[in-house]
Amino acid sequence: MSTIGAGYRVSTAGESHGKAITCLVQGLPSCLRLTEDDIQPQLTRRRPGQSNITTPRNEKDKVQILNGINEYGVTYGSPISMIVHNEDQRPKDYGNKTMDQFPRPSHADYTYQQKYGIRATSGGGRSSARETIGRVCAGAAAEKCLKECYGVEIVAFTSAIGHVKLFPDTKEYPCAAANPAFNTLIDNIDRKTVDEFVPTRCPDTAAAKEMEDLILQCKEENDSIGGQVTCVIRNVPTSLGEPCFDKLEAALAQAMLSIPATKSFEIGSGIGGTTMRGSKHNDPFVSKTEAKKPVPKVVQESGAYLTGAAEVNGPLTTTTNYSGGIQGGISNGNHIYFTVGFKAAATIGQDQFTATYDGSSQGVLAAKGRHDPSVVPRAVPVVEAMAAIVIMDMACRWIGPSRLRDLLIAHYEAEDAKRPADGDVAV
Amino acid sequence: MSTIGAGYRVSTAGESHGKAITCLVQGLPSCLRLTEDDIQPQLTRRRPGQSNITTPRNEKDKVQILNGINEYGVTYGSPISMIVHNEDQRPKDYGNKTMDQFPRPSHADYTYQQKYGIRATSGGGRSSARETIGRVCAGAAAEKCLKECYGVEIVAFTSAIGHVKLFPDTKEYPCAAANPAFNTLIDNIDRKTVDEFVPTRCPDTAAAKEMEDLILQCKEENDSIGGQVTCVIRNVPTSLGEPCFDKLEAALAQAMLSIPATKSFEIGSGIGGTTMRGSKHNDPFVSKTEAKKPVPKVVQESGAYLTGAAEVNGPLTTTTNYSGGIQGGISNGNHIYFTVGFKAAATIGQDQFTATYDGSSQGVLAAKGRHDPSVVPRAVPVVEAMAAIVIMDMACRWIGPSRLRDLLIAHYEAEDAKRPADGDVAV
Amino acid sequence: MSTIGAGYRVSTAGESHGKAITCLVQGLPSCLRLTEDDIQPQLTRRRPGQSNITTPRNEKDKVQILNGINEYGVTYGSPISMIVHNEDQRPKDYGNKTMDQFPRPSHADYTYQQKYGIRATSGGGRSSARETIGRVCAGAAAEKCLKECYGVEIVAFTSAIGHVKLFPDTKEYPCAAANPAFNTLIDNIDRKTVDEFVPTRCPDTAAAKEMEDLILQCKEENDSIGGQVTCVIRNVPTSLGEPCFDKLEAALAQAMLSIPATKSFEIGSGIGGTTMRGSKHNDPFVSKTEAKKPVPKVVQESGAYLTGAAEVNGPLTTTTNYSGGIQGGISNGNHIYFTVGFKAAATIGQDQFTATYDGSSQGVLAAKGRHDPSVVPRAVPVVEAMAAIVIMDMACRWIGPSRLRDLLIAHYEAEDAKRPADGDVAV
Amino acid sequence: MSTIGAGYRVSTAGESHGKAITCLVQGLPSCLRLTEDDIQPQLTRRRPGQSNITTPRNEKDKVQILNGINEYGVTYGSPISMIVHNEDQRPKDYGNKTMDQFPRPSHADYTYQQKYGIRATSGGGRSSARETIGRVCAGAAAEKCLKECYGVEIVAFTSAIGHVKLFPDTKEYPCAAANPAFNTLIDNIDRKTVDEFVPTRCPDTAAAKEMEDLILQCKEENDSIGGQVTCVIRNVPTSLGEPCFDKLEAALAQAMLSIPATKSFEIGSGIGGTTMRGSKHNDPFVSKTEAKKPVPKVVQESGAYLTGAAEVNGPLTTTTNYSGGIQGGISNGNHIYFTVGFKAAATIGQDQFTATYDGSSQGVLAAKGRHDPSVVPRAVPVVEAMAAIVIMDMACRWIGPSRLRDLLIAHYEAEDAKRPADGDVAV
Repeated sequence: MSTIGAGYRVSTAGESHGKAITCLVQGLPSCLRLTEDDIQPQLTRRRPGQSNITTPRNEKDKVQILNGINEYGVTYGSPISMIVHNEDQRPKDYGNKTMDQFPRPSHADYTYQQKYGIRATSGGGRSSARETIGRVCAGAAAEKCLKECYGVEIVAFTSAIGHVKLFPDTKEYPCAAANPAFNTLIDNIDRKTVDEFVPTRCPDTAAAKEMEDLILQCKEENDSIGGQVTCVIRNVPTSLGEPCFDKLEAALAQAMLSIPATKSFEIGSGIGGTTMRGSKHNDPFVSKTEAKKPVPKVVQESGAYLTGAAEVNGPLTTTTNYSGGIQGGISNGNHIYFTVGFKAAATIGQDQFTATYDGSSQGVLAAKGRHDPSVVPRAVPVVEAMAAIVIMDMACRWIGPSRLRDLLIAHYEAEDAKRPADGDVAV
Repeated sequence: MSTIGAGYRVSTAGESHGKAITCLVQGLPSCLRLTEDDIQPQLTRRRPGQSNITTPRNEKDKVQILNGINEYGVTYGSPISMIVHNEDQRPKDYGNKTMDQFPRPSHADYTYQQKYGIRATSGGGRSSARETIGRVCAGAAAEKCLKECYGVEIVAFTSAIGHVKLFPDTKEYPCAAANPAFNTLIDNIDRKTVDEFVPTRCPDTAAAKEMEDLILQCKEENDSIGGQVTCVIRNVPTSLGEPCFDKLEAALAQAMLSIPATKSFEIGSGIGGTTMRGSKHNDPFVSKTEAKKPVPKVVQESGAYLTGAAEVNGPLTTTTNYSGGIQGGISNGNHIYFTVGFKAAATIGQDQFTATYDGSSQGVLAAKGRHDPSVVPRAVPVVEAMAAIVIMDMACRWIGPSRLRDLLIAHYEAEDAKRPADGDVAV
Repeated sequence: MSTIGAGYRVSTAGESHGKAITCLVQGLPSCLRLTEDDIQPQLTRRRPGQSNITTPRNEKDKVQILNGINEYGVTYGSPISMIVHNEDQRPKDYGNKTMDQFPRPSHADYTYQQKYGIRATSGGGRSSARETIGRVCAGAAAEKCLKECYGVEIVAFTSAIGHVKLFPDTKEYPCAAANPAFNTLIDNIDRKTVDEFVPTRCPDTAAAKEMEDLILQCKEENDSIGGQVTCVIRNVPTSLGEPCFDKLEAALAQAMLSIPATKSFEIGSGIGGTTMRGSKHNDPFVSKTEAKKPVPKVVQESGAYLTGAAEVNGPLTTTTNYSGGIQGGISNGNHIYFTVGFKAAATIGQDQFTATYDGSSQGVLAAKGRHDPSVVPRAVPVVEAMAAIVIMDMACRWIGPSRLRDLLIAHYEAEDAKRPADGDVAV
Repeated sequence: MSTIGAGYRVSTAGESHGKAITCLVQGLPSCLRLTEDDIQPQLTRRRPGQSNITTPRNEKDKVQILNGINEYGVTYGSPISMIVHNEDQRPKDYGNKTMDQFPRPSHADYTYQQKYGIRATSGGGRSSARETIGRVCAGAAAEKCLKECYGVEIVAFTSAIGHVKLFPDTKEYPCAAANPAFNTLIDNIDRKTVDEFVPTRCPDTAAAKEMEDLILQCKEENDSIGGQVTCVIRNVPTSLGEPCFDKLEAALAQAMLSIPATKSFEIGSGIGGTTMRGSKHNDPFVSKTEAKKPVPKVVQESGAYLTGAAEVNGPLTTTTNYSGGIQGGISNGNHIYFTVGFKAAATIGQDQFTATYDGSSQGVLAAKGRHDPSVVPRAVPVVEAMAAIVIMDMACRWIGPSRLRDLLIAHYEAEDAKRPADGDVAV
């Protein structure tokens, strides 16, 4: 099955070199204003060919919404399917004699052949990173809804390439969450800023430079390198997530580890946090008034905010946030943040000594396709998409589609009320 | 919802101080020999009161299977419910004036109250670690089935307490998977050995000593400390796990992050692996014959093994195993291993300055209940249980209940054939 | 799997002669007042041994809620498990030589043996009508919630035994829905009235007499007879049910056909309705004000009603109700009603010529157990339970647990406000 | 949600006048030969414009498989999405002043508006019968797989139009299942024969004539009429269906009642069967050998049949089949048959007195669109599709994708073995 979510349910289909990638989403409430323009920017951010350190494969990756919205771009509350055609298919590039005989090491060729008795003969089929297009489509739709209802903001960035880390654990700061610079960053970072640091998407000039150098070095050596992406989600209402198996961090962990090439997930203080004592690691509560953390303007002014107040507006916040915005599996209203590790891409431009599918002989596989020396920078919008899907799923499950619809209607009414009436002169 | 799994579906209920913990499992095939004796040992390993470093709360934690098996202890293929009564309830211990007014920092009190408008007034209710009893019941049942069908072995152990790590990342070994000592350990470790290292359950004399000292120091200081648990699953058939969202590592990540107090999940080489180059990190394939890794005896002899051969018996293995036994989200037949991080327990024996539920005032919360200075050693069987649940779930989804039933029948027929007939003399 | 529902999720376990029947429900909102007293009455109505036309098996069928509620009987919003012990097990009654060799015709013995390779050797195991105890528990809990939130009323009654029908189709009334007497009945019928007609539960003196005679005649002849149950659900809010596969009538159809021994399901005008022309069968809309159908008092006064107004309070109703309260798969606020057909019980007190399990020989099976000549009257509370489960499931999916919790809180506050304060004298 | 099935999972999207209908199916095993040619015939049978008694709307309804199969038309085992473009959209036809103000009686306009706060302004949107295209696509794919693995045959036909019934209940034959003519028909009927009776699809010359006359009369009177469709499924392996809530007949009931305009579902003997005594209604078992019912040739010869024998090849059958091939919710290997009732189409060519959406005024609605006087004949392939989806779903859940894959491989190998080798001359 290629489906995620119980409230916001996303199903995708599509191999790397077929006709199209399909994304079918369910659970998006009615009365949401949604068009291709809400989806395309994140697809474009994910697109290959953006810089000298990503694969030169050129795909326009234009999304088309086939149904579920009316002629004015408003959702019906019914399922929405989106497709992105594969335009730049060059299966021949991948097909070489050795690739037909040898499963690529640490790729999915062998396990797919073993499981299905058949495999896509080029480009990795369903296991290709091109599959993530469906995730980005579904994530962008979710994000639009979350923004309208609650002012949710989701921003991811590269926090490590190989051994180069933006916030390495130190004695003073056993985890990034203990580091004031990290907290300032996740309070303020936005996507525009992150994209100023393309190609690495690491929002720090020095670290970005060091990372870029490392990636280029790998590229020259026909090698690849892994890294980490950190993501923050702001303005999440309280009460999202379920006790027991569907804790919010568990859902995020599944979502992130389902992205190709991922190796690790850390919520809040993460592994560094496991080295701390409870007395330091616990996050004391404080009333929001005292914390002088005003509700973000965009939310305050939306009108919708007050309608959903019961969910959003817990009286407390915490003075530290080692918990990463989640306690007992449920959002507490503070920033949710986490870090995802990615391995070095399995496909490299080097000869590899390995075995044939049937184990009858050993030999050398020489890969030829177009590949990224590091998938990390392009994974940034994918991580954001999966985060949006999870938060939206939990919102659908807890808030319910009827209340989300009401929040949207209230939001748009509040927006419309702020506009000058027809004939009025806006000064 | 408190349900996990699509093929092997586990639902649990029960607060820390109610009448009982309930576990209802579905998907277990018919014809499995299963009694309370298969469940109890893991419950006993999870039980508090085992040593001077765990909570002195005394619970017999005796499991009772209410239905789903016949009078000879054979499963019908219908749902099975199990209950464990709560015997040693002392709600008064927890109730003190400040605990009624203040949500405990980094515990679930505040988020539960916010979400549900009600909370258990003692012991953490549904968020208590006592909830994990249901997981252990379901895991033990799954494990029995996996062992009979495929000879699956699941062993977890403590790999870190605070900053004390069993296999720290080094220049030479950027991740444990690069360390021969680690690989030898996961090839051979069993539960009996792990339990020789109670109270820490870290199977290394030196490291265990250092960990125990650290825990005792925390206990004296009325503080708590986190750590990590590493788990290996051996003899998993190939082909388990789904592409896209239900990758095997994604399912494991969700399962592990759903355990209370977890902060991180790493599959295979984990975060250390993200610092490696592709050329080093890739796992070359080699035919199983050449690898001279014979199928484990218990499986070879079971008879059942050959019946399920198509699933189990891929021709290849890998010379290294940075992938952790999973490629493209699907098991490749090699050891699956992963590491889970646990934070320091939130409830400590120290005064904590925090805020009241409604934010109206700040003050000091003094906790009094019985609690573990480190939850890590007792988490070991819980990690094993969740691993068993996930593998069983994926087996049910892929192999199907009809084929699992056939494997079981073949297994027991093979076992019976090996026994001396009635009246025979075994020499 | 023995689970139903996506929002209100019910799982049951338990064979007819094991230790207990278990019911685990999820999705019930927090802040609902719920105790065993809310569950027991429907269990008692379902209980065998109520009259001379039901099986004399004597079961107290006392329900016990194990968890999910606090000491004051208020739900936590977490899963709730309930058990009913099997007290009067007499497996020997069923076991006779022929029953071990012959699968009972039209019972589940053969298909269970075929599917599972094992079967309960007495009483039908999981296929026994005793399994419906779990349904009744879950239904009663759902019903309590629906009543508090929306004033929902669910009443079922026997509408046919064999060929004796309460509202037979005629030229004038091609379906019951065309018959004013039927409409008056479903406007007003309550359970107390239905139970005045025990043993048949057909609320019409003449028809009930004829039905009872027919059942007794079957009993004397060691035979059994089928029949039909009609059920009405009043005060269902609009908007419940999903387009496409999860239409409200589709969910009801599944729920009803999952009850043992059912043969048919008809929504609204049913099969009779299929003979009518569109011009007659269409239900014209009319504003509620004009229809002078006031909101039922119990709902009006609840206070909760207004909170959920957006869902409940559509401006229109229909002048006829051939649709049965559902249009396009979604409730329109009018009465939902449907009819379920039950076959004659398969187990009869007559010799039956049939084949052995393995087909090796033919012979005579003589059944001996205690059985009902007609299951229909006892099916009445089971039909009500399944109806409650479906409506609750759709309410959870659409309204959402957070809004249901708010409705409950508002309802209880409104109730409390109506009570005289302590010390006041109620005149 | 617009998803059905747990093992074979079908999701659809698409309004009547949007860009396309989308169908995304999951669970189809790998190694199935599948192309558009397997899907198109059933779509064409469903297509409007086939005769003088169906709507003249002209749609080519050409299906396109976007992904999930390779270039030779073999499934990968990954999700498959299919789209059918809407070519002949004439929204203006439907839009008339009164249709914007008045919800059409007994249509979904009012409930959609109430639920979603928005509705498709033309053609019924998601509630249009055009939605069934997605069902037919998914059903045809399922059917191909079932045929290859087990020789399953699914044939539906019109069994009633209005009061004209093909097999009316009589004293002698209280249900169709008691009528030898009915049993002969369901033993032998195929689609080719059914289509010889287009436009009614009732495979009996006299009844078909009477039905056609009735439909034409309704057409002339700008009215509509309902009816019934009976469907038989042959060669279903034993063991499909789950005890309790997911009984095979319950799944069929949901599937059928989810088809637009349905009013009733009867399994096996149906409502007529409820009037029979147990002693007559019970189906005695008999060994298959004695029953001299050979396995159908197409299955016998397939080779695949024997591989799946454990599932398929129960030793018994029944001498009568009032049960409709299902006992205890599980298939017993005999024919599965059921009947579905359809109401008269709600949209008629007559003035209708009704109320405006907001209830502010009453008035006359004059419909203008193109509509069928009876939807029944065109519903035939839709019923077949839903039947295929349910059987496939239960096969996936019980047999499992790994075993289905093996059945397919065995089937094609057996087929290939029967072909003359290249260069051979076939005499």
